Amino acid sequence: MTEIPKNHPRYESLMTREQISAGVDKGMTSRQGLLAQGRGEAFDYLIGEKTIESAEYAEAVAVALLMLAKKPVISVNGNAAALAPNDLVTLAKLTGAVLEVNLFHRTEERVKKIIEELKANGADIVLGQNAEPLLPLEHERAKVEREGIYEADVIFVPLEDGDRCKVLADMNKLVIAVDLNPLSRTAQTAHVSIVDNLKRALPKMIEMVPDFKNMTEEDLWEIVESYDNKIVLVDAIETIKENLTKKQNEVLGIEEKDNTPDPETVKKMKRKAEVARRVMMRGSDLIME
Amino acid sequence: MTEIPKNHPRYESLMTREQISAGVDKGMTSRQGLLAQGRGEAFDYLIGEKTIESAEYAEAVAVALLMLAKKPVISVNGNAAALAPNDLVTLAKLTGAVLEVNLFHRTEERVKKIIEELKANGADIVLGQNAEPLLPLEHERAKVEREGIYEADVIFVPLEDGDRCKVLADMNKLVIAVDLNPLSRTAQTAHVSIVDNLKRALPKMIEMVPDFKNMTEEDLWEIVESYDNKIVLVDAIETIKENLTKKQNEVLGIEEKDNTPDPETVKKMKRKAEVARRVMMRGSDLIME
Repeated sequence: MTEIPKNHPRYESLMTREQISAGVDKGMTSRQGLLAQGRGEAFDYLIGEKTIESAEYAEAVAVALLMLAKKPVISVNGNAAALAPNDLVTLAKLTGAVLEVNLFHRTEERVKKIIEELKANGADIVLGQNAEPLLPLEHERAKVEREGIYEADVIFVPLEDGDRCKVLADMNKLVIAVDLNPLSRTAQTAHVSIVDNLKRALPKMIEMVPDFKNMTEEDLWEIVESYDNKIVLVDAIETIKENLTKKQNEVLGIEEKDNTPDPETVKKMKRKAEVARRVMMRGSDLIME
Repeated sequence: MTEIPKNHPRYESLMTREQISAGVDKGMTSRQGLLAQGRGEAFDYLIGEKTIESAEYAEAVAVALLMLAKKPVISVNGNAAALAPNDLVTLAKLTGAVLEVNLFHRTEERVKKIIEELKANGADIVLGQNAEPLLPLEHERAKVEREGIYEADVIFVPLEDGDRCKVLADMNKLVIAVDLNPLSRTAQTAHVSIVDNLKRALPKMIEMVPDFKNMTEEDLWEIVESYDNKIVLVDAIETIKENLTKKQNEVLGIEEKDNTPDPETVKKMKRKAEVARRVMMRGSDLIME
């Protein structure tokens, strides 16, 4: 890997590129994976390269869903394995989810490499090598394991392709997607769309698990049922628009009174935070108010 | 190349991916190039995958500048060579510009491959192999040819890196950049930022050349002098925001009266078109009205 100083303003972003590049060297990440990573980078930049409030809310709902699931599966592709192998294994262990390698551009060689990487990061069992064409898609993309994704009730799919996300949703599985593009078919089709960088989302989700462990099943269902994915998507798009407006003002040299935030904005933000808190505390339905 | 049916809704975008992938096979395009291509794809999607009016205006100004230049240079990197080798050669011939291969991640091997590709597409002379570290940047990125970029007065740089764009501008060269990201440092630093896909921009520019050939130098200068790059950048960002708003409405199920456009919008569009036309016809300064 190229040496990048930790104080570089774009350290995280550059490190991620190095990780993805290392994923190619290890035979896990494909060319299409590099293109997809580039698309994700663009959206991460637009979203501000941080976890926005609505994404954190979606992450909480995702954790609740994984806890409630009878047969949760975490689907892993070449990019996810390159970026966060350790956190994927940890989240699987904490939520009792099964790990399954599932690739858009499937080759047996890449499946094997990714399984090795996950095992090197502490996974005991990783499905994916015994995949059969069970989904209604053309042959290679149709492949999943019967004991894994095919029979799962909740599937966590970081960086999934849109077609397959739709097929899984049509099979009445609950799909949690991590996708930085809130406009993508994946984000639009999933039940819970986490518009966040996988590398930020997973540690946050892992951190949430202990709190959720103490909740009753009823409480967890209430969190899940009060969730509205549309609000989360619209909020992510709104964030991008706000960031774009800031940039327009910068280009035009319009000063922003940015250090002393507008009281109206503060009020609005507080209200948003309160709404999220109340939903989290089972106030339900409030997100729609 | 994978066979893609021409009626596929995302034919252009998928074909572009194939071209870039072929560029990797040919040893012209780097991994970083694939990531950059992915970022470009995301912004092209947000801009609507078409040439917006303000981009076409920037393209016209770019053609005028290339005609006016004493020593115009077209800088070519691995992605540009993979996507539009033929159009790059044609534009160079029509405007009397010199082609120079200039890479962010320079290797002599890649420089050679790209020169071969451009020659296979009809170029007679392509600079790049005799580059010396003449720019105030770290060694490899500093390399340009003395007879080429170093002495150029106008440089057309499709898909350039931000640092180098700034250095060239600081050396009092006029820089024309093609960058789908209107927020990038390149777009913000260049004198003329074409926020368009290189594959759409080049044919449009080539088509414009004959009209400009008939103009006097004075007329061409008037087009260039009346140009304001900030307006073009702000307009591109505005287009993205409008597309995002449409998507929000779609998510929320809010109907748009899209087929019968709002008369106010039509009026505004017509006015914008008229302004652009007048500027093109040397009405000058009108773009700021």
